[in-house]
Amino acid sequence: MKDDTIVLAYSGGLDTSIILKWLELEGFRVIAYVADVGQEEDFEKVARRARATGAAEVEVCDLKEEFVTDYIFPAIRGRAVYEGRYLLGTALARPIIAKKQIEIARKYDAGWVSHGATGKGNDQVRFELAFAALAARIKVLAPWKESRFLERFQGRRDLIRFAEENGIDIPVTLEKSFSTDENLMHKSYESGVLEDPMQQPDPGIFTVCSNLEDAPDRKSTIEIDFVDGFPVAVRDLTGDTPKEVTSPLPLFQFLNELGRIHGIGRVDLVENRYIGIKSRGIYETPGGTILHEALRDLEGIAMDKQVQRLRDMLAPELAAVIYNGYWFSPEMEFLMAAVEKSQELITGTVRLELYKGTARPVGRTSPSSLYNPELASMDIAGGFDQSDSAGFIRVNALRLKAHRVITREAEKGESDATLGQ
Amino acid sequence: MKDDTIVLAYSGGLDTSIILKWLELEGFRVIAYVADVGQEEDFEKVARRARATGAAEVEVCDLKEEFVTDYIFPAIRGRAVYEGRYLLGTALARPIIAKKQIEIARKYDAGWVSHGATGKGNDQVRFELAFAALAARIKVLAPWKESRFLERFQGRRDLIRFAEENGIDIPVTLEKSFSTDENLMHKSYESGVLEDPMQQPDPGIFTVCSNLEDAPDRKSTIEIDFVDGFPVAVRDLTGDTPKEVTSPLPLFQFLNELGRIHGIGRVDLVENRYIGIKSRGIYETPGGTILHEALRDLEGIAMDKQVQRLRDMLAPELAAVIYNGYWFSPEMEFLMAAVEKSQELITGTVRLELYKGTARPVGRTSPSSLYNPELASMDIAGGFDQSDSAGFIRVNALRLKAHRVITREAEKGESDATLGQ
Amino acid sequence: MKDDTIVLAYSGGLDTSIILKWLELEGFRVIAYVADVGQEEDFEKVARRARATGAAEVEVCDLKEEFVTDYIFPAIRGRAVYEGRYLLGTALARPIIAKKQIEIARKYDAGWVSHGATGKGNDQVRFELAFAALAARIKVLAPWKESRFLERFQGRRDLIRFAEENGIDIPVTLEKSFSTDENLMHKSYESGVLEDPMQQPDPGIFTVCSNLEDAPDRKSTIEIDFVDGFPVAVRDLTGDTPKEVTSPLPLFQFLNELGRIHGIGRVDLVENRYIGIKSRGIYETPGGTILHEALRDLEGIAMDKQVQRLRDMLAPELAAVIYNGYWFSPEMEFLMAAVEKSQELITGTVRLELYKGTARPVGRTSPSSLYNPELASMDIAGGFDQSDSAGFIRVNALRLKAHRVITREAEKGESDATLGQ
Amino acid sequence: MKDDTIVLAYSGGLDTSIILKWLELEGFRVIAYVADVGQEEDFEKVARRARATGAAEVEVCDLKEEFVTDYIFPAIRGRAVYEGRYLLGTALARPIIAKKQIEIARKYDAGWVSHGATGKGNDQVRFELAFAALAARIKVLAPWKESRFLERFQGRRDLIRFAEENGIDIPVTLEKSFSTDENLMHKSYESGVLEDPMQQPDPGIFTVCSNLEDAPDRKSTIEIDFVDGFPVAVRDLTGDTPKEVTSPLPLFQFLNELGRIHGIGRVDLVENRYIGIKSRGIYETPGGTILHEALRDLEGIAMDKQVQRLRDMLAPELAAVIYNGYWFSPEMEFLMAAVEKSQELITGTVRLELYKGTARPVGRTSPSSLYNPELASMDIAGGFDQSDSAGFIRVNALRLKAHRVITREAEKGESDATLGQ
Repeated sequence: MKDDTIVLAYSGGLDTSIILKWLELEGFRVIAYVADVGQEEDFEKVARRARATGAAEVEVCDLKEEFVTDYIFPAIRGRAVYEGRYLLGTALARPIIAKKQIEIARKYDAGWVSHGATGKGNDQVRFELAFAALAARIKVLAPWKESRFLERFQGRRDLIRFAEENGIDIPVTLEKSFSTDENLMHKSYESGVLEDPMQQPDPGIFTVCSNLEDAPDRKSTIEIDFVDGFPVAVRDLTGDTPKEVTSPLPLFQFLNELGRIHGIGRVDLVENRYIGIKSRGIYETPGGTILHEALRDLEGIAMDKQVQRLRDMLAPELAAVIYNGYWFSPEMEFLMAAVEKSQELITGTVRLELYKGTARPVGRTSPSSLYNPELASMDIAGGFDQSDSAGFIRVNALRLKAHRVITREAEKGESDATLGQ
Repeated sequence: MKDDTIVLAYSGGLDTSIILKWLELEGFRVIAYVADVGQEEDFEKVARRARATGAAEVEVCDLKEEFVTDYIFPAIRGRAVYEGRYLLGTALARPIIAKKQIEIARKYDAGWVSHGATGKGNDQVRFELAFAALAARIKVLAPWKESRFLERFQGRRDLIRFAEENGIDIPVTLEKSFSTDENLMHKSYESGVLEDPMQQPDPGIFTVCSNLEDAPDRKSTIEIDFVDGFPVAVRDLTGDTPKEVTSPLPLFQFLNELGRIHGIGRVDLVENRYIGIKSRGIYETPGGTILHEALRDLEGIAMDKQVQRLRDMLAPELAAVIYNGYWFSPEMEFLMAAVEKSQELITGTVRLELYKGTARPVGRTSPSSLYNPELASMDIAGGFDQSDSAGFIRVNALRLKAHRVITREAEKGESDATLGQ
Repeated sequence: MKDDTIVLAYSGGLDTSIILKWLELEGFRVIAYVADVGQEEDFEKVARRARATGAAEVEVCDLKEEFVTDYIFPAIRGRAVYEGRYLLGTALARPIIAKKQIEIARKYDAGWVSHGATGKGNDQVRFELAFAALAARIKVLAPWKESRFLERFQGRRDLIRFAEENGIDIPVTLEKSFSTDENLMHKSYESGVLEDPMQQPDPGIFTVCSNLEDAPDRKSTIEIDFVDGFPVAVRDLTGDTPKEVTSPLPLFQFLNELGRIHGIGRVDLVENRYIGIKSRGIYETPGGTILHEALRDLEGIAMDKQVQRLRDMLAPELAAVIYNGYWFSPEMEFLMAAVEKSQELITGTVRLELYKGTARPVGRTSPSSLYNPELASMDIAGGFDQSDSAGFIRVNALRLKAHRVITREAEKGESDATLGQ
Repeated sequence: MKDDTIVLAYSGGLDTSIILKWLELEGFRVIAYVADVGQEEDFEKVARRARATGAAEVEVCDLKEEFVTDYIFPAIRGRAVYEGRYLLGTALARPIIAKKQIEIARKYDAGWVSHGATGKGNDQVRFELAFAALAARIKVLAPWKESRFLERFQGRRDLIRFAEENGIDIPVTLEKSFSTDENLMHKSYESGVLEDPMQQPDPGIFTVCSNLEDAPDRKSTIEIDFVDGFPVAVRDLTGDTPKEVTSPLPLFQFLNELGRIHGIGRVDLVENRYIGIKSRGIYETPGGTILHEALRDLEGIAMDKQVQRLRDMLAPELAAVIYNGYWFSPEMEFLMAAVEKSQELITGTVRLELYKGTARPVGRTSPSSLYNPELASMDIAGGFDQSDSAGFIRVNALRLKAHRVITREAEKGESDATLGQ
């Protein structure tokens, strides 16, 4: 491995442009690696900027298709929702970005990888754990944790001055009122003015989802088909010319479009970072939210009750594994083996209404439904005798009766406690 | 205990009126017990009907205040949501109804209690387990599980004929297209035409929440104050004359009113009954949904991360305990001891916007916030060195590196596996 | 399916002999099915007795090999221990017995199956749930739950008289002081005089494990080799001529022999039956106990920490699934998918000392060990800097400091709370 | 707080003696704090050595009673067993030592605390998290993580030379073949020659428990009385003069004595440290093991089944909290609230036989037993009809039948799948 070669995850923004130049000045041959995970961006422009800023090589990688099929869909199948509300948009993108970065490091035989995440957040952890898991010996240079870098750049003003001095052409303002991160799954807004958890954001900041008042006054009715928990078709039944999309990436983009229009999937919350501090975040996850609602609904008819119970025990663990950056880990493999099993035969169609921020399932059908007239009327194999329920209840009540007798005796210290009163 | 005296949970509807008369004909002295848990009802009329139908005594009991403080609030504090979506409206009312029924049985020294729940549902279990837990020796007569009763009443037509023959004055139609259950927490709609899970209900059937298209075009902004997880004030900040309600029952009724107007809390799902069959239900839980969203949001800033994680492990257990009818049980006491602890210092205010079916938290503040500028900026006790994160990550990465080395060796069967690739 | 043909799980004992004859008198063509799961028995004699008692056909099935490979080993791999102590010997045998019984029912096109388990225990549930899972339409005749049968046989005296009257030749005594159940995995002793949980059993009743005082004064040192959690070899290193056994059934029988000699695996406990009552049982599980201890020990070096944590969350669920009779169920398939994943690369050798009731692991080695000098000394990929720990600890301490500040403020109601005291 | 004053947790051994002197040379006024948690030690001698080595003050604190009542007993009540085998002896002592150390720091208004734990183990974490939780602003000086200290002391040889140069009088050998830690709960042996997990330790190293061959050939029969899960009396029934001990510390010491004699509680395992590396440890926990076995056994008759199930879900979490050093944390308070509830009415007596490394419960009785003749014979409130079990089973089988039908249809792709086959 070449100790002078470094692959930098480059976004085209101010921070990673500064880092690119700084790494070059530190003597590195910098490979600028730009991951396209669906963010709004002019990638040709980003590539030109990388070269202009000093990159020896530039690699722009379209990861969108793989991001949808191998990261977003598996997470939704596993019901991965962090702390009950966050659908993990940023956390899902980090491992795929890191994985490709390692591939590029191998291509150039680079001894180093670098990223622009700060030292107080989750992303540094996600990047660096993925690097460790995929290439145990590769070295990581994280400038925002390097004292040499930190001393030089003590504020945004220093960054801008450095950019000017080094001819880095990037439109910036001194004031940056909050941070965002965007990919196919979501866009996040945090820090800066949003740090005050009581401060409502200006409605004008949102670029993904419609504000609810601006969403259309007419609902959309859609259907999503699933096979084994994977979405295979989305149909918009609204209007005269229904539209159907079937392959993974266009399907997910279509869901995003539907969700954006109707303002679906914006949440505003305070979450617990892996490093133990709380953080306020606002997320917009339009297509992911619709998909999540739909698959949970389909599970209602097609997943066995006890499998659902056990899967739901594991789901918060899965969410934490992803949130904390352990996508490439033995525990992830363990959990996904269980998820995979749970999604067998989760096949069928869910109908939803999208309107003013809501995505409500209103109907569902499945060829592998465990809920069907024959079963519901309990006529299988001779039927269901009402008196069976009496036995079921009496057996389950035994334990409660014993408990009552004992605790009453204990409370009263009576030896003559009776059972009836 | 008098073996000829029976306390019947009487609703005033066709089924329990038939049962009342039938019990009388079977030789019982029937105490008709009417529980007011907030359903829309003319209780004087119900009482008159009970007497007219043959009740020896009628007891109408207003349980609303206790229902809110001792059942609804505790369940919401414990994050009790069954299978991820159902807020347990019916399940919460059953134990309080049963508890009062046992008190009345003791008042009249009755040897029997009776209810009108069928043999295929959850409610029979909830009633009878509560009876068993509270009065182990009391006898239960559940006509819908009695062959004598079932043989006589084989269809709705038989019920109506019996009513006519016995002068039971009750307006009924032969056709009953679905069932409902209503209380302060929610109204449910199920069975009949709703059994087909793909069948969308007629929008006209809903009596609680506005259909979204009919909800106002103007959002309401409200604030809820909590102390130790209990709501203590609700303020509607909308309009010129803000309104505040503070005592439990009016507060909850006010939330219900707000939720109803904005169409909040309707869900349509297929759930797993305790007895193992699946069942489609539609629930409207306006105030409960708002309260649930608000408290979860407040927990975001005021609950410790690890306490939240552990509480979230127990929450599905709590929901199942309630859903399955074990409100009065040792496991419920165990779980509530933990819930109680988790809600200490969950104190503060949440601001929400209510609009077209959505109840979105948009701000929150807490005197016991674990998220505050001092902490967020990590300046406690000497601050947070960025390099601390580097150590944190490297320590957590050790295990992943070891795993990679071992599994690669195993995959390749190589003894010369290297760590770097 | 022939409605006059019934397959009875026949043990050769008094109860199932009576049932066989009773079924014949009820008009059934009885297929006597005898499962050999390793119990001490003269199966030819049992078959003769079945024929003499009226069986139309007798099927003696040797299930030992399959019992070891498909039931015992998977349970041990999954760490299935009920309520922390019971290794599930009886519960593991029931599904394999029921599965073969259904196969025989299909062979004879029988419409019915029957068993001799009583109506208060776990075994009835295990048999009947397995029947339901494997052949939803087959009918079950469980005489000990039939009023016709129960009225006729109200005590042991009735059984003996019936045997005499019907020429059933079986050595019985009027007094039966307790019940046993035996198979390759264990022998159980319960009920009768053992029902009093303070009553110590007579040491003379045990037929499997040596009483500790009688066990040899010399320990045995053995080694067990595992591949992916399956035992593949057992070596007794004691004495001059070490012995090794490698194929599954002989291997397990060898472990049983070693365990029996040294008195390993006897437990005396009160457990919770599925039907909710408590029950005192004494179990002797010699080979299973040794295997369980050994595999857990191997996991210590070869299983990832987080996989172990998650597996251990699921292990009590697996144990309950097996104990309660849900071997053939969707939740079992779900859990075993996870178990299977967890046991990949649990490969290596464990050395144990067997002595006077103890089976102590004293050494272990694994080609896929995650514990090896290179890792332990933390020299992977540049090594482990002591200061990394400082960062790790400081990051983890942040949350605790915040909690302290907040709770102290809350306790004191002070606005000037300081962090240091 | 005085920035020149430091409280050092001082053991009297080589390492902390070196540290004491080094701190003095660094300019600190050193308060040597010696915690007596039951280790074998001449505390007067240790105090003299501290003074001789340069301590400004010496505080020897007897923590034994509090250690037993507030740390050992609660952990055993909570079933805290790390990774299924380790009873947490060392982990339990750290928080009490740290707590007293903070008290002493406050007494002397010291700005600093110090300890001698290394940078690769668990104890550094346990000490420092406790310090953080109890005194967020106090500063920690951990020499084994300080580069200045590490550079000076690169091997044991350097320590010994420094001791000689500074007149520290301490008997040491150059060779230290393994490390130990001892307190009332246990003694541990690890590192050095024990690092090889296949290496059996020399039987001569053990100072607590008898090697099994040396344990007496005669068993001891004892009884332990519990009230709400706390042991309140231990009786040795062996021999002519039974002995009873009742107050907490002597009671636990008596159990230790009994366990030591019979060689009870030695385990040899590989565990996962908090920092993610695996570590081989050998522990001797005589009294704790007996107590743990006894209380679990009593729970068998006195704890409700569902409470036990939920408690057992939390027990591994409790063990990890303790192991990882979070004794003083919100999650610990949460878990202990649940433990406290679970132990109500766990009252009664357990009889055990102690012999050659085994502590086998052989009888148990409880005034709050949920297992008693009346209950077992199911004669409460009218008794238990055998046919109740039939209903119980049929209701539970419904789900399995539905699953079979669906999965068979899916496997075969047949529309004519039948339920019977």
